[in-house]
Amino acid sequence: MLKLSAALAAFALSWPALAQTAPPPPSPADAIPADWKPIPDGEILVMTLRGGHQVFIRLAPRYAPAHVGNIRRLAEAHWWDGTSVNRVQDNYVTQWGDATETKPLPPMVIANPPAEYEWTRFDGVTAFARPDSYAARTGHSADGWPLATDGKTSWLTHCYGMVGVGRDLAPSTGSGAELYTVIGHAPRHLDRNIALVGRVIEGMQWLSSLPRGTGDLGVYESAGERTPILSVRLASQLPEDERPRFQYRATDNERFAAWVRTRENRTPPFFTVPAGGADICNAQAPIRRAQ
Amino acid sequence: MLKLSAALAAFALSWPALAQTAPPPPSPADAIPADWKPIPDGEILVMTLRGGHQVFIRLAPRYAPAHVGNIRRLAEAHWWDGTSVNRVQDNYVTQWGDATETKPLPPMVIANPPAEYEWTRFDGVTAFARPDSYAARTGHSADGWPLATDGKTSWLTHCYGMVGVGRDLAPSTGSGAELYTVIGHAPRHLDRNIALVGRVIEGMQWLSSLPRGTGDLGVYESAGERTPILSVRLASQLPEDERPRFQYRATDNERFAAWVRTRENRTPPFFTVPAGGADICNAQAPIRRAQ
Repeated sequence: MLKLSAALAAFALSWPALAQTAPPPPSPADAIPADWKPIPDGEILVMTLRGGHQVFIRLAPRYAPAHVGNIRRLAEAHWWDGTSVNRVQDNYVTQWGDATETKPLPPMVIANPPAEYEWTRFDGVTAFARPDSYAARTGHSADGWPLATDGKTSWLTHCYGMVGVGRDLAPSTGSGAELYTVIGHAPRHLDRNIALVGRVIEGMQWLSSLPRGTGDLGVYESAGERTPILSVRLASQLPEDERPRFQYRATDNERFAAWVRTRENRTPPFFTVPAGGADICNAQAPIRRAQ
Repeated sequence: MLKLSAALAAFALSWPALAQTAPPPPSPADAIPADWKPIPDGEILVMTLRGGHQVFIRLAPRYAPAHVGNIRRLAEAHWWDGTSVNRVQDNYVTQWGDATETKPLPPMVIANPPAEYEWTRFDGVTAFARPDSYAARTGHSADGWPLATDGKTSWLTHCYGMVGVGRDLAPSTGSGAELYTVIGHAPRHLDRNIALVGRVIEGMQWLSSLPRGTGDLGVYESAGERTPILSVRLASQLPEDERPRFQYRATDNERFAAWVRTRENRTPPFFTVPAGGADICNAQAPIRRAQ
């Protein structure tokens, strides 16, 4: 961790426009323009909190089609408008939805979808050099989702910022009306026990920096502590010119593989001992606003 | 992630005093009273922030004696009083010290101590079943510190809440006047590149829930955004009756090994697929207030 002045100096060094020097030579880890692919409007959720703070979530319909189907219907019905963030547990999760858990679900929302927790095909096109504590192999799907496999099944991993579905005790799978995101160290023990449906791709700070709840499991003890949710919409529900445009970095190319190697082996002048590896949650695939 | 009502019901079930049922039978993973050992007053740092919010840090003098020596002298000199929290970078670190980086260090503080990053002996008395992405083996010291080794050297690991020393570019090692704590997924690539000196054992929420800085690397862009530090003291500097009393859970016994197994294999009724493993940062040794 750099001291402040050194951090800013190093940052300047790494950004030629700031340091007013020649740009660095291209790296094998740099994306080419074609590596950036658009995220469809129907796969972006826009949550607006009190104060107008916006949180953008990329949905994962390929991995959790029934749950994401529910989430789309909830957004289309404006169901979350007027609900709130109800639980913030330090080093664990921020959770939102209807605090009373009595609000009726809209038509066509399946109360208890299939358990979309794991599947038999490993979608990953990258692989890390070392196994981790939870899986024989991890990697990214071609479109940037973090995955793990034990050779028999595979699953999405509970990295920082991933979004999952609150549920009752098993065999409940949760409808998707109550959602959470990871705000601490990856709770990978939740993998395969819960439906992951997306990832926060911008505005994470509005969920991660909320006051921690003082009730059991970080639940707020009074209604006044909750953060109101003004609205949740799919980008496809917004007027064309108001839609946020995001791109993911494709991972099925040698440039991304080189990028993973840079995550595994950080370089001088700050680092002197390269780790020689990285876990999947320290190498989440980049997302950016469309240029 | 439990829905709210289910979470509270499950919590009640697991706490017999709340559910007013008979206590559960003892588990092999339960500590016995002798497993709880006092943390010495000279190894606890008490940082008081604006509003009187207190953060308690356990120091690691065995692993970083020169840096912890400096930190003790800084606390004894009241050096941090009037400094501030200057940087909060989401999913990374909260960092504090003198924002101007010009305040003179007290006498006897070594500006650039030896690089206390790794050592040749593996202190761990527990071992996890699987290697992780960063090390051939991880475990806990007898007194609860998280460790990793590659068989040649060993080191403390950058888990959530661990406290490290900000420094300039290598070969600077940092004096200890500028400190940070991890507020996101464990940045294990920092291991062996920086001195870890402690762990936040209570009050973490006062550092993790601060607004994120909008400057480069999460540095606050204006002085008004900083959180003032009112004081930092060793517990041993406080009047006897004001000293916080903490205990760590000893790890060199079969009860702790059983506890680790419970972290590796969560159980019904919420979990249906046990992970079969855990990483060291999801199994940090418990600390509690003295009973």
